[in-house]
Amino acid sequence: MRVGELSRRSGVSLASIKYYLREGLLPPGERTSPNQATYDEGHVHRLRMVRALIDVGGLTVAATRDVLAAVDDPEVPLYVALGRASGTTMDPGDQDETQDETWAAAERTLAAAVDERGWAVSDENPAWHTAVGVLATYARLGDDDLSAQLGLYMRAMEEVAEREVAAVVDRGDRARTVEGVVVGTVLGDTLLAAVRRLAQQHCSLRLLGETPLRPRG
Amino acid sequence: MRVGELSRRSGVSLASIKYYLREGLLPPGERTSPNQATYDEGHVHRLRMVRALIDVGGLTVAATRDVLAAVDDPEVPLYVALGRASGTTMDPGDQDETQDETWAAAERTLAAAVDERGWAVSDENPAWHTAVGVLATYARLGDDDLSAQLGLYMRAMEEVAEREVAAVVDRGDRARTVEGVVVGTVLGDTLLAAVRRLAQQHCSLRLLGETPLRPRG
Repeated sequence: MRVGELSRRSGVSLASIKYYLREGLLPPGERTSPNQATYDEGHVHRLRMVRALIDVGGLTVAATRDVLAAVDDPEVPLYVALGRASGTTMDPGDQDETQDETWAAAERTLAAAVDERGWAVSDENPAWHTAVGVLATYARLGDDDLSAQLGLYMRAMEEVAEREVAAVVDRGDRARTVEGVVVGTVLGDTLLAAVRRLAQQHCSLRLLGETPLRPRG
Repeated sequence: MRVGELSRRSGVSLASIKYYLREGLLPPGERTSPNQATYDEGHVHRLRMVRALIDVGGLTVAATRDVLAAVDDPEVPLYVALGRASGTTMDPGDQDETQDETWAAAERTLAAAVDERGWAVSDENPAWHTAVGVLATYARLGDDDLSAQLGLYMRAMEEVAEREVAAVVDRGDRARTVEGVVVGTVLGDTLLAAVRRLAQQHCSLRLLGETPLRPRG
């Protein structure tokens, strides 16, 4: 199909398609003349993925490119790409000045929790740095509730991850497995955050006596 | 203290402080002359919160302002502010075109899951719209694994929310309670996402035989 139909089918504007081609988020179409190319169903699907990761997952264009690189390249360990694929990343520029005693204490807290739970994880996983950063930030704000919740978070996320990894294992095709993991992880972050807020509304209704603006239905 | 000391104490640049003052994220200091104001410990603390929400929580400046408004204004229901305080928000401009049969089916899925769990939540909670949007997006990508995980997510988040709401109930002071909830929720999103990726690494090591780049320690 021509680029016009690709735009219509995917619901993505021509300007955005050109931008994604330029940034390497969308592979080029097959050239049919110096000014024309044709696209296939794979391009429609890829564009839907790109929009899901950006619009719903909240990823930046750069993070989306990193994530899609893992889908396309079997050499990139999945967990490295997923670790980078957060809606937020700690600014590496701040890293040096944050490596103080608070940071070291936060890292010891995480290491102890991981060892207690028996997780085999690497501190090269970008998520390690992010988790330490959150714990250190919270400690600097004069609080440590999040350290206290850490074990609960780990238990809850282990149950979620176990089911999710098992669900994609037998998809067979590697690209399809990786795609499922990536999209499920990024969209799952947003869904988890939303479900958490619904749960908070339910619990604060029960525990604090707050009333909803208007009950559903 | 003068603005220079406020910058030094909080680690936030003068340019950023002026920007936050202009955008209403930081309340003005007390004017001592037409060109000078003094700031107090409350300003230092507020600046640390602003940076935590933006740098670690991944909020936009606009979302940060919404969240801080709930800390300052007892009239804003907490869950409305928290629902807005996600690292990502569904673009309301897309709302009309997304209200198709896929969207309606996603909303029925969420409503059934919420009813089954006995949650008293309002569809005016912005998180409701976000959750429906994620489920609909995932269905459009030709998959429905996330609907299958929904019950698991809800159970995990109810356990987390229950403990978190209970932990802040007896702080007494409303502003301090709300601040604890807000910061814990926004930073908690980032921590949950990071812990989820560590759990995935652990589970994929066990289930897929993937090896870490280098084990920790």
